[in-house]
Amino acid sequence: MPTILGQNQYGKAENRVVKITRDGDTHHIKDLNVSVALSGDMDDVHYSGSNANVLPTDTTKNTVYAFAKEHGIESAEQFGIHLARHFVSSQEPIHRARIRIEEYAWERIVTSDGNSKFIGADEVKHSFARKGMETRVSQITYDGERWEVISGLKDLTVMNSTNSEFWGYVKDKYTTLKEAYDRILATDVSARWRYNWTSDEQRMPNWEKSYEQARKHMLQAFAETYSLSLQQTLYQMGSRIINSRSEIDEIRFSLPNNHHFLVDLEPFGLKNDNEVYFAADRPYGLIEATVLRDGVEPKVPVDMTNL
Amino acid sequence: MPTILGQNQYGKAENRVVKITRDGDTHHIKDLNVSVALSGDMDDVHYSGSNANVLPTDTTKNTVYAFAKEHGIESAEQFGIHLARHFVSSQEPIHRARIRIEEYAWERIVTSDGNSKFIGADEVKHSFARKGMETRVSQITYDGERWEVISGLKDLTVMNSTNSEFWGYVKDKYTTLKEAYDRILATDVSARWRYNWTSDEQRMPNWEKSYEQARKHMLQAFAETYSLSLQQTLYQMGSRIINSRSEIDEIRFSLPNNHHFLVDLEPFGLKNDNEVYFAADRPYGLIEATVLRDGVEPKVPVDMTNL
Amino acid sequence: MPTILGQNQYGKAENRVVKITRDGDTHHIKDLNVSVALSGDMDDVHYSGSNANVLPTDTTKNTVYAFAKEHGIESAEQFGIHLARHFVSSQEPIHRARIRIEEYAWERIVTSDGNSKFIGADEVKHSFARKGMETRVSQITYDGERWEVISGLKDLTVMNSTNSEFWGYVKDKYTTLKEAYDRILATDVSARWRYNWTSDEQRMPNWEKSYEQARKHMLQAFAETYSLSLQQTLYQMGSRIINSRSEIDEIRFSLPNNHHFLVDLEPFGLKNDNEVYFAADRPYGLIEATVLRDGVEPKVPVDMTNL
Amino acid sequence: MPTILGQNQYGKAENRVVKITRDGDTHHIKDLNVSVALSGDMDDVHYSGSNANVLPTDTTKNTVYAFAKEHGIESAEQFGIHLARHFVSSQEPIHRARIRIEEYAWERIVTSDGNSKFIGADEVKHSFARKGMETRVSQITYDGERWEVISGLKDLTVMNSTNSEFWGYVKDKYTTLKEAYDRILATDVSARWRYNWTSDEQRMPNWEKSYEQARKHMLQAFAETYSLSLQQTLYQMGSRIINSRSEIDEIRFSLPNNHHFLVDLEPFGLKNDNEVYFAADRPYGLIEATVLRDGVEPKVPVDMTNL
Repeated sequence: MPTILGQNQYGKAENRVVKITRDGDTHHIKDLNVSVALSGDMDDVHYSGSNANVLPTDTTKNTVYAFAKEHGIESAEQFGIHLARHFVSSQEPIHRARIRIEEYAWERIVTSDGNSKFIGADEVKHSFARKGMETRVSQITYDGERWEVISGLKDLTVMNSTNSEFWGYVKDKYTTLKEAYDRILATDVSARWRYNWTSDEQRMPNWEKSYEQARKHMLQAFAETYSLSLQQTLYQMGSRIINSRSEIDEIRFSLPNNHHFLVDLEPFGLKNDNEVYFAADRPYGLIEATVLRDGVEPKVPVDMTNL
Repeated sequence: MPTILGQNQYGKAENRVVKITRDGDTHHIKDLNVSVALSGDMDDVHYSGSNANVLPTDTTKNTVYAFAKEHGIESAEQFGIHLARHFVSSQEPIHRARIRIEEYAWERIVTSDGNSKFIGADEVKHSFARKGMETRVSQITYDGERWEVISGLKDLTVMNSTNSEFWGYVKDKYTTLKEAYDRILATDVSARWRYNWTSDEQRMPNWEKSYEQARKHMLQAFAETYSLSLQQTLYQMGSRIINSRSEIDEIRFSLPNNHHFLVDLEPFGLKNDNEVYFAADRPYGLIEATVLRDGVEPKVPVDMTNL
Repeated sequence: MPTILGQNQYGKAENRVVKITRDGDTHHIKDLNVSVALSGDMDDVHYSGSNANVLPTDTTKNTVYAFAKEHGIESAEQFGIHLARHFVSSQEPIHRARIRIEEYAWERIVTSDGNSKFIGADEVKHSFARKGMETRVSQITYDGERWEVISGLKDLTVMNSTNSEFWGYVKDKYTTLKEAYDRILATDVSARWRYNWTSDEQRMPNWEKSYEQARKHMLQAFAETYSLSLQQTLYQMGSRIINSRSEIDEIRFSLPNNHHFLVDLEPFGLKNDNEVYFAADRPYGLIEATVLRDGVEPKVPVDMTNL
Repeated sequence: MPTILGQNQYGKAENRVVKITRDGDTHHIKDLNVSVALSGDMDDVHYSGSNANVLPTDTTKNTVYAFAKEHGIESAEQFGIHLARHFVSSQEPIHRARIRIEEYAWERIVTSDGNSKFIGADEVKHSFARKGMETRVSQITYDGERWEVISGLKDLTVMNSTNSEFWGYVKDKYTTLKEAYDRILATDVSARWRYNWTSDEQRMPNWEKSYEQARKHMLQAFAETYSLSLQQTLYQMGSRIINSRSEIDEIRFSLPNNHHFLVDLEPFGLKNDNEVYFAADRPYGLIEATVLRDGVEPKVPVDMTNL
């Protein structure tokens, strides 16, 4: 047989699980999208169609829902760790499990007046609006010995309306761009950071707090950097996280440059003093880089956008 | 000629305009997506291709950007009023202008520590993150005499994790649904309300405050209604707005019932005590209705979803 | 009570049904997305939450699947007619049913070599690839007496690479556009045509053939019209259908002008002789109009895009 | 400095270029979406914001359009090779260029009647409809010495309405799935194959023919395989390509299992004899694997879907 099987994985993708936890009248929501990918002794199913080693993807789906009850959902990362450990330790042919999770955040609906004539104000303890800002993501991989946890976020759209310049670049025969000394800098942040927790013997990070802090440092660095290039801003965002959070060794960003072009209003006898912009869709600059703690080996995949 | 021309309109759609207003160091953002549709004496361009009455769509785009400078963007509604008045009053063949606007909200990035070592905390006066929650929408129509302003929002996802029931419904031979005495009620609110401001002689509403208040009442009614059906909740949301805001005469909702199905965990020996749900995508219930002030004639189009 | 209920409707939206019909070894696919909207005596459910008149949306979903078995799916229109008639005639509180259907087309996979060494060539009688071109749509409305059938298509992207001009238009102070004497004309056709079949006493059109012919005439008119404006092309597309198909009385189009801008290559010492274009996303011109048989009353809704 | 810069790349993404080639009256279209990513001596721009080594992303965009004129677009692959070679060879700080291209196919509009009364039938030589089926993709990488070309397609939706089974799988405590002896097998094919052309000294493949043939073999294998698992079908699709096309050494697939669930019609007294299916959206099985020529080293990235 001149062809052979290479890396392979399978599982149920995008299991949408919502978990309500009741603390008296006060409810809490965890809203996740969980994808399971399993690898191991899977040659036969590819070569002959024998499913003797195949736990059905339907079963991996059932396990997600059952585990939401059995273990609860303390955090996306902790939930993924329960799932990955289960598949690798309970199924002999499975040697590696990769759990990917998206998390959607909700906030409580505020009825600030407090003088509802319909039902007591207490009732809003079960009413929520979905925050649309970013999507939190996490990937947990386990091979029976070592853990790899990569967390992050996507679609966090940010803008600085000043304190950004772009000049002093290379000019070749195809260069027509004019230098800019005061421009809008805007991007949709996509970031993935890798934790240095890799073993059950280590103390596990506080996943919820770590997320919140990494996000905060990233936003602060974005806001506070006087930017000469989006690359410089990216590096500041990454190094701020590495410097502030000892549990994180590496972070990769994929940052589209959401171009806001100053509209030429001179044909209409108007001066555009950095006031009116056209927000363009495509094309866009795309800046991607890894920032890591000196001495560690990079492991976050380079491709965060796909061919 | 056995065929004739019926209603027609044209213009430039989805002009993305971002306006930065500088109040000293503090910047303000208005981020709009503006679509222009013009109607009038347009038979010739359809029958023969003569453009003698056609103001180019490119010109309508330019006008959007020029007006952002000339008039500023006080509110989406006010901006649309400037545009609609201009097209109808300045172009003889144009008898009617309809301006549709989507508005995207931004919030300031907070650097709560305040002890940045890079740049002064003041700098965040120009740094923003885009709120992803709902999209605010508005439609302004003008025929040279009367105004019609319909405003609203879409994609505001809300959930009550209890206080919802569904029972006592019709059962026919195709009915298999089990009655529910405690279910999740979730929807993506799409609402359009019509203002009773129709003439330049009337005092114009405070568009920004009206939006904020209508949204608040709608959310409160959603949170506070003990629901026996999504229709009942819808009606409460609508009547709360009509009762609270005298400038609004009519509101139409399109509310998908975002089904959250309780997962059957019994095969795994587990009891699901309203804890673990599967959030389904399709199909979904879709509840649509108009609520209006007694005595007024409904004018918001019935079809908020399209064929 | 100062507020009242206006027009309202409800039902299950986006029921995805795939029907396989076996003609010996040869299989046939119908792949539909069916949305049900019912209206009638529904005041109580809005005012008090009483579901006594409410057939559950879940039941309307079940009916779609049961009818695919009981009646088969001869065409989207015929299937919608079965459903609409059922809801109105079997449920006393239901006075009006509106069925919307999207249909996705499939074509057989060709194994042209015919010398497969795995399985007989006959086997491809059950193998299909989904055509991605347009989505066929239909809306069937029934009030117990009269039928309204509106069919059409969306997302049919077409382009003429020449034979399009645009000049002789109005110039105001915001006009900067240069006249064009040879441009690309491209659009995503969205069309809805209304049949004059309205009663069970009339002979029903051949829905499948009518769709195929209307589509053909529309494409031919697009291809063969030397265009001085997209409006002119639109009118030709519509009148060709009305003139050729006596069963159709009215058609409405929503045609974005998919701008293809000639790239300025002069800065690089190159001449762009109508060769290299930038395909823009937003903004876009949007041309919408109804073409109808002389003497008939227009009924297709004006708004094919939503606020 | 405790943090360092890792892998990084930048460029303009999603440059939409449409090239019209005139062969007398007959026009030809190439419709591409081109993304450029450059790497090299880029430490300074990240650390200090100095753009001294940075060719602007705007220039990379201009180059795409200029090259469409200067070199034409013989194929996506050949166009990418021109671009990658240019950036690496003309810019000293650039050591590696990666060009990604999506290609959209068009077909000529047929006016089969041939008796148009408007304009001669010849005119359709410039009229096109966009085929919506799959999107062709390609990624060309060059480091100044070696080439890597990975091509493929995405969103090719296929279905076998029979000749698929699934049974004999592992059952654990979370398994509830019933075995299936005749099911629908449907997927959206996403495939990336790597060419063994790596050097200018080698004879270049015929990219257009190779794509067409690889696509054909893949579809045939899908249609002709009697499937006991989607993994088995995947392997047949891959090995058919490797065995038939000597220029291709490796192929990776990401195949969602587009579930079509047989609807239970028994509650309505109906028997569903593999006729009526519910086409589900989420969750879905996801099967991913590489098939490669024996002895070659796999290089196509494992992650075709992203975290």
